[in-house]
Amino acid sequence: MSTSTDSHDRSEGLAFRPKFDASGLLTCVATDAATGDVLMVAHMNEEALRKTVASGEAWYYSRSRQALWRKGESSGHTQRVVEMRMDCDQDAVWIRVEQLGAACHTGRRSCFYRKIEADKGETRLSFVDADRHFDPTEVYRK
Amino acid sequence: MSTSTDSHDRSEGLAFRPKFDASGLLTCVATDAATGDVLMVAHMNEEALRKTVASGEAWYYSRSRQALWRKGESSGHTQRVVEMRMDCDQDAVWIRVEQLGAACHTGRRSCFYRKIEADKGETRLSFVDADRHFDPTEVYRK
Repeated sequence: MSTSTDSHDRSEGLAFRPKFDASGLLTCVATDAATGDVLMVAHMNEEALRKTVASGEAWYYSRSRQALWRKGESSGHTQRVVEMRMDCDQDAVWIRVEQLGAACHTGRRSCFYRKIEADKGETRLSFVDADRHFDPTEVYRK
Repeated sequence: MSTSTDSHDRSEGLAFRPKFDASGLLTCVATDAATGDVLMVAHMNEEALRKTVASGEAWYYSRSRQALWRKGESSGHTQRVVEMRMDCDQDAVWIRVEQLGAACHTGRRSCFYRKIEADKGETRLSFVDADRHFDPTEVYRK
């Protein structure tokens, strides 16, 4: 069980003590080192986190495919890690990356290509920065 | 069950169809509208998301306290939402905010005040941008 002292050590200490959730995952936010834009939100298990630290390239864990995954292994659109940061609770990681091509599986640079807007009491989405850098039917054909 | 067509509609359509997880939550990343820094990663339930869209102020759902929570309601350090974006799968939201004071409960501007570094095969943390904007023992005294 997590105690108050444990929580204090985790947030104030310099020991690397990632706190994985019940599924063995933590959340990772990747931002574009050049623009500051959020590119994607994904998950890392212990192995993905370790490989990312060791290689300087982003590795994730896909919940849908239940598999470790080197970003760009199918598309060639890899992420070189410029800086990695840990949050206060050690359950989320922020990586600033140099993104080759596009981060999103839809072909867009970022997964966040739609704004959320309130319009006369209704909430709607609108496209923004939604140009495709690749055709997903071509890239993921195999 | 989610189908391939459903997934396509969710990523290519303009209908607001947030996809909450089994706990009724989605992930929210808040970045500083001025600097692009990631301030925090937190969760929103349906009500927090709705209140954020309607009010232009960030609301979250605290998993530890199991409660809806207006950011800054204890500390006064509110977040005014400048822009809200939805990701491809509609299970993550990115908000760019004007942060009053500090986002982190430890008193730092951002929760990500430590770098992760590999040092001779060991992984360690080091402080960066770790100045406190407030003393948490004062602010959360009540």
